Amino acid sequence: MVTIDINCDMGESFGNWTMGRDAEVMPYITSANIAGGYHAGDPHVLRETVDLANEHDVALGIHPGFPDKIGFGRRQIDVTPQEVADYVTYQLGALIGFAKATDLDVQHVKPHGAMYSLLSQSPEHARAVMEAVLDVDPSLIYLATDMHIYEVTEEYDELTAVFEGYVDLRYNPDRSLIVEKQLTPKPTDEVTDRFVQIATEGTVEAANGDTIDVPAESICIHGDGPNAVELLEAIHDAADEHGINIAAPSA
Amino acid sequence: MVTIDINCDMGESFGNWTMGRDAEVMPYITSANIAGGYHAGDPHVLRETVDLANEHDVALGIHPGFPDKIGFGRRQIDVTPQEVADYVTYQLGALIGFAKATDLDVQHVKPHGAMYSLLSQSPEHARAVMEAVLDVDPSLIYLATDMHIYEVTEEYDELTAVFEGYVDLRYNPDRSLIVEKQLTPKPTDEVTDRFVQIATEGTVEAANGDTIDVPAESICIHGDGPNAVELLEAIHDAADEHGINIAAPSA
Amino acid sequence: MVTIDINCDMGESFGNWTMGRDAEVMPYITSANIAGGYHAGDPHVLRETVDLANEHDVALGIHPGFPDKIGFGRRQIDVTPQEVADYVTYQLGALIGFAKATDLDVQHVKPHGAMYSLLSQSPEHARAVMEAVLDVDPSLIYLATDMHIYEVTEEYDELTAVFEGYVDLRYNPDRSLIVEKQLTPKPTDEVTDRFVQIATEGTVEAANGDTIDVPAESICIHGDGPNAVELLEAIHDAADEHGINIAAPSA
Amino acid sequence: MVTIDINCDMGESFGNWTMGRDAEVMPYITSANIAGGYHAGDPHVLRETVDLANEHDVALGIHPGFPDKIGFGRRQIDVTPQEVADYVTYQLGALIGFAKATDLDVQHVKPHGAMYSLLSQSPEHARAVMEAVLDVDPSLIYLATDMHIYEVTEEYDELTAVFEGYVDLRYNPDRSLIVEKQLTPKPTDEVTDRFVQIATEGTVEAANGDTIDVPAESICIHGDGPNAVELLEAIHDAADEHGINIAAPSA
Repeated sequence: MVTIDINCDMGESFGNWTMGRDAEVMPYITSANIAGGYHAGDPHVLRETVDLANEHDVALGIHPGFPDKIGFGRRQIDVTPQEVADYVTYQLGALIGFAKATDLDVQHVKPHGAMYSLLSQSPEHARAVMEAVLDVDPSLIYLATDMHIYEVTEEYDELTAVFEGYVDLRYNPDRSLIVEKQLTPKPTDEVTDRFVQIATEGTVEAANGDTIDVPAESICIHGDGPNAVELLEAIHDAADEHGINIAAPSA
Repeated sequence: MVTIDINCDMGESFGNWTMGRDAEVMPYITSANIAGGYHAGDPHVLRETVDLANEHDVALGIHPGFPDKIGFGRRQIDVTPQEVADYVTYQLGALIGFAKATDLDVQHVKPHGAMYSLLSQSPEHARAVMEAVLDVDPSLIYLATDMHIYEVTEEYDELTAVFEGYVDLRYNPDRSLIVEKQLTPKPTDEVTDRFVQIATEGTVEAANGDTIDVPAESICIHGDGPNAVELLEAIHDAADEHGINIAAPSA
Repeated sequence: MVTIDINCDMGESFGNWTMGRDAEVMPYITSANIAGGYHAGDPHVLRETVDLANEHDVALGIHPGFPDKIGFGRRQIDVTPQEVADYVTYQLGALIGFAKATDLDVQHVKPHGAMYSLLSQSPEHARAVMEAVLDVDPSLIYLATDMHIYEVTEEYDELTAVFEGYVDLRYNPDRSLIVEKQLTPKPTDEVTDRFVQIATEGTVEAANGDTIDVPAESICIHGDGPNAVELLEAIHDAADEHGINIAAPSA
Repeated sequence: MVTIDINCDMGESFGNWTMGRDAEVMPYITSANIAGGYHAGDPHVLRETVDLANEHDVALGIHPGFPDKIGFGRRQIDVTPQEVADYVTYQLGALIGFAKATDLDVQHVKPHGAMYSLLSQSPEHARAVMEAVLDVDPSLIYLATDMHIYEVTEEYDELTAVFEGYVDLRYNPDRSLIVEKQLTPKPTDEVTDRFVQIATEGTVEAANGDTIDVPAESICIHGDGPNAVELLEAIHDAADEHGINIAAPSA
């Protein structure tokens, strides 16, 4: 029986400002990427998000970002490898604090926005982050969003990396994603077809009709998509139908 | 042989702004209270401070403050018990991250400035923090700066509390401290006398000449005092002379 | 013909986080209280809000708050009179920058949340703020939310103060407001009755049935109330019907 | 009689963290570039710095930076032209607030660190900032640190630009500066020679011995240089000796 993880960004509210529909989405996912208080989130949101994940047996991951709330961590900042590693260690540690308070472990690390892009473009920065993660806890899983990063993870024998695919975005033939400025509602059948094909065959039909390899052990869904909950329900139904087991990689 | 700890606030620089003389003071202390990035400190300063403590075998503690850098965490903020507990968990977790990266444990918690004052005045807030600390790690030591807080720690069987005394400030007869706006240089003999009396007899001569109980297992020194290093050297000499062992409570 | 102002808090979004329905509400109000980037808002939101106000000929006011985004400026901070005055000058200046860039003047000052409460409770802090406002521009209007503050404004001959009433909250007999944790939808007739009575008679029927003086020249509406737009439309209709002119105090 | 301005960065302390020796340097300069609270400074520091400048009849300028205190505004952030313009308007406005409170005008704008570098490299960003400055107040002077920026200022008839030279750093033959990681003490005669040559001939001897054009109407001195006050005294003596008038461009 094939097993696949569903991960989603969570805990991106801040103070009195709400973002996303965490309470609605959490029941359908298996790994939560939780904002660490830099691009989004704060200590109160972190605690509430860890509690919500705990309630639904969802594995905890840190979703570290740059210290740039005005730009939501989506603007590149010219940091050194050591600096980005320090931002990851700090936010990962903060999540470990709340996880320990709930008798849970942190499962994974998935950098956010411009930090993810930087690591994808600069192996030197990616290595600094991976070494920082290994230093904190070698049992942590690195959730790799693209092959550039995945290839860097392979330099580290100790590091467990999980490659992720996207089901609510379309792919270019070179396996890059066709990103949308504003997420549009997606047809459930298109999404479930992509989900089943990734889970069972490790491939996706790209925008030009080519079949490309997407050897993903986790799929990411955008929790703030206009019909995210509907898509998640359809994915769970499709999984049942095709005998696909949905579970966190650490489960 | 009597044993006593020397603790000092560390890691209160921020970005390009330097505060304190951490590199000069660290060799003389046994417990470092490290700022967590809220009232002072940042991820880079945290890492450097943990490395410096590690180099000198100094035990690590979190020195959590309110999120108020402009006010250096010295202004009271009207937070709920849950909010202050969340600030402690977050900053404690961040330090745990850097400690784990250095294969060290965090030894203790000592709240800073207005947060310390709040806990001293409100047992409800103090309890929220102590329960948060116990939730994260019941082996953590709570460094209690006054009897109000120490009494709350005694409600918790699991919680190890260490009461601290001050050697570079004078005491009122009611065991409160005579705080100075601007630290003045202190005569070494006055400080070493107070140190030896606290360590060996658990008492201090108050400003009015009364002998009062200060049952401290740790003494705090202000690292930014004008002659802090000189005082620390004299304290170590006095300890040698009187057969007092200087060591962290967890050592 | 009686004239009254309608003021509303605006520009309380922050980065990617949206708060309120500024674009829907702006057409119905005459004075905008714009967040200054401390409790809410940022330079981009400030510019967009000034542009939106300009489009609808709405007068500009600064809505300064404490530097506490996590607490949305609703937590008391133990600041000195000089400190709170500095926070007002800074945020007022920032708005003046954007106003000048649009060839507009800033009309008024209305402190937010815990800052407003502090000024209401401490005449010393209120005086520091009023003197700071006068120092920056003696033609600025101080929007006074309660009588405690209004009385302090009367100490200053130069300072123009406008007292405001609330139409979407009920009053206690002592003219304090019955604040709701979560704003509930309000019946339009209750709100328009209160509006007309304040505008034409300067009185309100309190919760216990007493008629109390509310000598307001401006009424405040909560733009984030669940039926705010509906209430504002009804208020404009009632104004037309009763021959009440809705205009900013500086108009 | 030739006239030249001396400008210096000021107000870069933050909260309890002190940077620079503003009180010692201010008596010797004619234009102060005051941090706006983003890379450094805060409302209290701003007020104190404006007061100090006022006391010594020093003209006020804003020294706006990126919102990055941890990086002291020295790390490039990938902002849009509109975003950087908004940061300038916001910080310029804040200074206008404090200037108006002291019955002073703001004289000039001089971007800091990575913001200055961005404007030097991207004419599109430079134009957005210059248009924002003109929108706020067309009488403001733009202090241009290099020719790339100076050339953009020349596109705007309305904008007054002042080119600045450096006397405590050496020049490359292409008129770029030889920046030092850590400022070293400079011989007073080397600095005064360079000052006199810039002021009277508009040239500098570059590191390779070439004489290059530096048509500066203002010279910048690093207030945090190890012998800054000594250099400033020597510059004033040299100015007296050579009949050079030291005055702000707006004087």
